[in-house]
Amino acid sequence: MNEAEARERAAAMLADAGIVLTPAEREQIEVADFGLGRLDEIGLQLVVYVNTERVCAKELVLFPGQTCPEHRHPPVAGEPGKEETFRCRRGSVVLHVAGAEIVLGPGEQHTIEPDTLHWFQAGPEGAIVSEFSTTSRDSLDFFSDPRIVR
Amino acid sequence: MNEAEARERAAAMLADAGIVLTPAEREQIEVADFGLGRLDEIGLQLVVYVNTERVCAKELVLFPGQTCPEHRHPPVAGEPGKEETFRCRRGSVVLHVAGAEIVLGPGEQHTIEPDTLHWFQAGPEGAIVSEFSTTSRDSLDFFSDPRIVR
Repeated sequence: MNEAEARERAAAMLADAGIVLTPAEREQIEVADFGLGRLDEIGLQLVVYVNTERVCAKELVLFPGQTCPEHRHPPVAGEPGKEETFRCRRGSVVLHVAGAEIVLGPGEQHTIEPDTLHWFQAGPEGAIVSEFSTTSRDSLDFFSDPRIVR
Repeated sequence: MNEAEARERAAAMLADAGIVLTPAEREQIEVADFGLGRLDEIGLQLVVYVNTERVCAKELVLFPGQTCPEHRHPPVAGEPGKEETFRCRRGSVVLHVAGAEIVLGPGEQHTIEPDTLHWFQAGPEGAIVSEFSTTSRDSLDFFSDPRIVR
């Protein structure tokens, strides 16, 4: 699967779930392969609705079994790191947070505290997950795998 | 329309839009009549997903023609007031922000800066609107109509 295919597949999953995007948003769906070139296994598709100095909201789309690798959001400029709430909309996702495993199905959610190691993997149907958070500064995230480039 | 009827109608609109709630969330849909007792015209139905010290996310449900009255979110404890992004999911809503009129249909959104007077009204089909914001402190909102109690 290449980036264009991933973008198209994510757009179809969002449309199936009744989540309406503008044409510009559909074209700009972000495909993150974390610099590993193994998008089928490790990757994430994102629609960023808003990301200001205070608030961020996104839809995350994961294909069946796809994983977002372990990372944490460190403090920045005297503020605590990014605080994230993940709310599952479709499919299922397993969050691994500080050693615990949290399974989310549609309508279930979990808040991850700042600077806490976490990774997550979609179940067999994939997942659509809304993320509500403080500002995203992806380039400052700390990934456990040193090969990762975000 | 009484509060229980409004809650049931909002739950049905959310279900129609494919927005999955837990049974507890459905039962706890907040119905705000702003103390005016005219829910058909002036009111708002809300599902609060998360409201921490930093981030808040909600679904707002408005019935056809229903209005959320003019208000602003003043600064609190040295921080700017609440910053809100409204993203329309279904139906349509007209935002009135500092004298301007902004019409949002599905997939369209607008960010309202802190401490800015605004009100909004659903179109003829009603509206479902996602709100992404900083912390909600409803009791500190300033409403232009002094009869309003939030």
